[in-house]
Amino acid sequence: MQSKEGLIIAALGGVNEIGKNMYVFQYNDDIVVIDCGSKFPDESLLGIDLIIPDVSYLLDNQDKVRALVVTHGHEDHIGGIPYLLKQIQMPIYASRLTLGLIEIKLREHGLLRETKMTRIDANSTIELGAMTCSFFNTNHSIPDCLGVVMDTPEGTIVHTGDFKFDLTPANKQYPDLHRMSDIGKKGVYLLLSESTNAERPGFTPSEQLVGVHIEEAFNQAKQRVFISTFASNVNRLQQIVDAAVRTNRKICLLGRSMVNVVQVATELGYLTVPDGMILEPNEAAKLHPERMAVLCTGSQGEPMAALARLSNGSHRQMKIDAGDTVIIAASPIPGNERDVSRIIDNLYAMGAHIIYGSQSDLHVSGHGSQEELKLMLTLMKPKYFIPVHGEFRMLHQHRILAEAVGVRREHIFILNNGDVVESKNGVVRQFGQIQAGQILVDGLGIGDIGNIVLRDRRQLSADGILIIVITLSKTESKLISGPDTISRGFVYVRDSEELIEEVNQIVIATVNKMLEEHITQWNVMKKTLKDSLGQFLYSRTKRRPIILPIIIEV
Amino acid sequence: MQSKEGLIIAALGGVNEIGKNMYVFQYNDDIVVIDCGSKFPDESLLGIDLIIPDVSYLLDNQDKVRALVVTHGHEDHIGGIPYLLKQIQMPIYASRLTLGLIEIKLREHGLLRETKMTRIDANSTIELGAMTCSFFNTNHSIPDCLGVVMDTPEGTIVHTGDFKFDLTPANKQYPDLHRMSDIGKKGVYLLLSESTNAERPGFTPSEQLVGVHIEEAFNQAKQRVFISTFASNVNRLQQIVDAAVRTNRKICLLGRSMVNVVQVATELGYLTVPDGMILEPNEAAKLHPERMAVLCTGSQGEPMAALARLSNGSHRQMKIDAGDTVIIAASPIPGNERDVSRIIDNLYAMGAHIIYGSQSDLHVSGHGSQEELKLMLTLMKPKYFIPVHGEFRMLHQHRILAEAVGVRREHIFILNNGDVVESKNGVVRQFGQIQAGQILVDGLGIGDIGNIVLRDRRQLSADGILIIVITLSKTESKLISGPDTISRGFVYVRDSEELIEEVNQIVIATVNKMLEEHITQWNVMKKTLKDSLGQFLYSRTKRRPIILPIIIEV
Repeated sequence: MQSKEGLIIAALGGVNEIGKNMYVFQYNDDIVVIDCGSKFPDESLLGIDLIIPDVSYLLDNQDKVRALVVTHGHEDHIGGIPYLLKQIQMPIYASRLTLGLIEIKLREHGLLRETKMTRIDANSTIELGAMTCSFFNTNHSIPDCLGVVMDTPEGTIVHTGDFKFDLTPANKQYPDLHRMSDIGKKGVYLLLSESTNAERPGFTPSEQLVGVHIEEAFNQAKQRVFISTFASNVNRLQQIVDAAVRTNRKICLLGRSMVNVVQVATELGYLTVPDGMILEPNEAAKLHPERMAVLCTGSQGEPMAALARLSNGSHRQMKIDAGDTVIIAASPIPGNERDVSRIIDNLYAMGAHIIYGSQSDLHVSGHGSQEELKLMLTLMKPKYFIPVHGEFRMLHQHRILAEAVGVRREHIFILNNGDVVESKNGVVRQFGQIQAGQILVDGLGIGDIGNIVLRDRRQLSADGILIIVITLSKTESKLISGPDTISRGFVYVRDSEELIEEVNQIVIATVNKMLEEHITQWNVMKKTLKDSLGQFLYSRTKRRPIILPIIIEV
Repeated sequence: MQSKEGLIIAALGGVNEIGKNMYVFQYNDDIVVIDCGSKFPDESLLGIDLIIPDVSYLLDNQDKVRALVVTHGHEDHIGGIPYLLKQIQMPIYASRLTLGLIEIKLREHGLLRETKMTRIDANSTIELGAMTCSFFNTNHSIPDCLGVVMDTPEGTIVHTGDFKFDLTPANKQYPDLHRMSDIGKKGVYLLLSESTNAERPGFTPSEQLVGVHIEEAFNQAKQRVFISTFASNVNRLQQIVDAAVRTNRKICLLGRSMVNVVQVATELGYLTVPDGMILEPNEAAKLHPERMAVLCTGSQGEPMAALARLSNGSHRQMKIDAGDTVIIAASPIPGNERDVSRIIDNLYAMGAHIIYGSQSDLHVSGHGSQEELKLMLTLMKPKYFIPVHGEFRMLHQHRILAEAVGVRREHIFILNNGDVVESKNGVVRQFGQIQAGQILVDGLGIGDIGNIVLRDRRQLSADGILIIVITLSKTESKLISGPDTISRGFVYVRDSEELIEEVNQIVIATVNKMLEEHITQWNVMKKTLKDSLGQFLYSRTKRRPIILPIIIEV
């Protein structure tokens, strides 16, 4: 899309999905980007490690990009930053902890030196071309979250970032209701607000509730306590540390991201850990079991993380004993239920005492529920509204909430990634698209896996591959060796001799017939072989392996 | 395991899992089997269609098998029957509807004629060698459910089947509390009770609740209503039919299992549908949208079922219009959440009004919650207890409930499939194993997919396959053609010319070096090629495709 006049707003990621949030705000020749997240693939994207936004629009308009403003330090808001910066340099603005977490990533990718990073807080004002950004404090399951206020020539735009209204936050970082009220009073032209919990009625409970229950569980545990939660939930880590202090336990950390976050958060002052509190696993092993708590990654059932390894006895540094207590202080994100359940089953088989599930009060969401979304809408009183950060059904539920508090239906835009909302002379409408999409990261490859490769992977995963090798004589036009049949993921050849023998007979008959008819174009031969074998195998096995004839001419 | 003296009990399926229930009860030379279910594979079993129990133990003891008693007609209790009967003939005892549903399967597999089937009900008593079976009425999400009482020389064994205590059942099939009380009063030696909802506090709501909300939703819908639920939940189908009658709508059925179940249940009198109520899709299309309800399969998000096809516009017979109402009257079974969510997102994009989720009161479980499990345990007062029908964590929770109502902990056995509990002279203990396991069905293949094939499918699905074809001259010991490189699911060759060129160079260098060193054993050559290419590709791409060198000698 050619660059336009006036104000335009679009998502490069974050709508019609949970993950890879990235929003573009452009006024004539100035572009401000909010967030650049990544997302984990679902089970249909076989072999893919990570998904990042397609930033072609920014590449085409590099000279206009003024800044990347980051609302907070979660992966779905910062995970795409290294990949973005490898393509376009731009200054980054973020709060203190957020910057600390971004730095870890930039260091890993060798990008730390060349990137200009500026710390901001709720008192900052930054001029970014035609747009002026200021910020307000919100709270969420990580400290130092900011909402963004952008003053543009068309009016004031507010982007909430992720938020809840935790009025008794564990870390005393209160949501700044008065500031939000003032912003709303001055007049918000357009609001973008997050929709994660738009389907959930009521008000999300305070994080403090979790702290009470963690301490209770620590008190009752007769031996070691293993507790698993999101490493990035620094407030919860603090409550776990506090519970350990009060119940006279030392702490041991398992899992790379847990070690990383505890280090950064402690250095920056977001986590207060008494000296000598954290022990290495080998030191911790010497303690009496009742004096020890283990804080570990893997609360989503990730197969390579600490909790999964502990649950199948494959962790190198630690074993779970019968009578130990295991606390899973997180809810499984949809799609992860089976992995988490498998871990719990294994832990039961080990004789552990396990505290998990929605009845346990050991997890609260970091996202505001319906009443909180209505509260934000009421405070901001926006003229126009774009629900963001959610799958379609969440955006639609959020629309219904907005209508209920007085936003006019025709002033609400439910977008797909790439859809453009433009504002010109006070008239807002949805019009046109910019390029947006998902770039797949597989190992070191970025964007090199396309639909053909994924389609092959799907067929391979369901029915495998059958390779047929034959050698033809160029001069005599006859089969001189083969067929040799190789199966991977289709059948185990040694157990299927009869089937393979029939396959060979079909190949010989098909090839001889074609040679008799002087059909020697390879493409035709291969296609004929594929078709006849495909039909035969489906009728005999109801499976459709990839059939790959290899013809050697000598 | 050699056959034993005394009473033995084992699960061939159904413990440490949800699905493929099958329990074996043996007294000396008499074996009674309860249920023979199937189970759907999880995402790790790539390409597998169905899982059935390993019945080797029954094959080894064919002459002793007296009967298969079936508690109710759900797939996880009857889905394995055709595969069992293909190996061993045995008479089947089941209630009327259950037999009707089993007959559909046996007809499909051409087994109907040769199978002896006997209808039983709560008044039946059947002598099966040393064991006498009688039955009691329970209720669940399908009509005609029975619990089984087995009088054995060691004492009375009770197997509950699946149950809840719905005291206001939609179909008036009440759980027979007085009968259960009498059985308990006479003395139950050993109870096997189902554990599906052992993690859920409270009492499962009555199915009638759902009926009220369905009618309400039908009343409010301005256009057509699409409603999706489990086809086997005949009671709910009846409530949907009733709601349609009362709101003056005709019904159209979409999906093979929905058509099958409605036909069988109507024929057998479990479902009452007024004449002319059910229309074919083409007739239904002529009705005013407000006069029409569509009952369809696919409430679990199954990609090939009616609801999924409707949601992506690919159903051949019907389309959803903006303003239509879609009701999903089922909860997603763990693992299906993403598929269901995707459907809801698509339906929103179509402009449908959607009623779904736990807030909607349009689904209740068919399994009793904790208070109901305690009620069953209290009624039966068993001396010994085996929690069945559940994953480990559910069995453990059920154990805790049993202890709470007075069963001694050392009298409770948490088993894995194949574990044997034996009773001799009034002493019960867990001792030894019989063969048990999962047989994978893939297309027409039963048990022919083993670990090697699955491991290949996993590697293929994640990173694909790279095939290298080279032709060597036997006489001159040199490379005469190739390497030809074929990728499926690894990289798209046309986009990766440079990488493939490097692969070819490595192959040529490796082969020439080996030929120079007179290494000509194919196995050694192949392994060397695999190793050097594997290392190179991992370092360059962080991927591990299957590498398959094919060497042709001419």
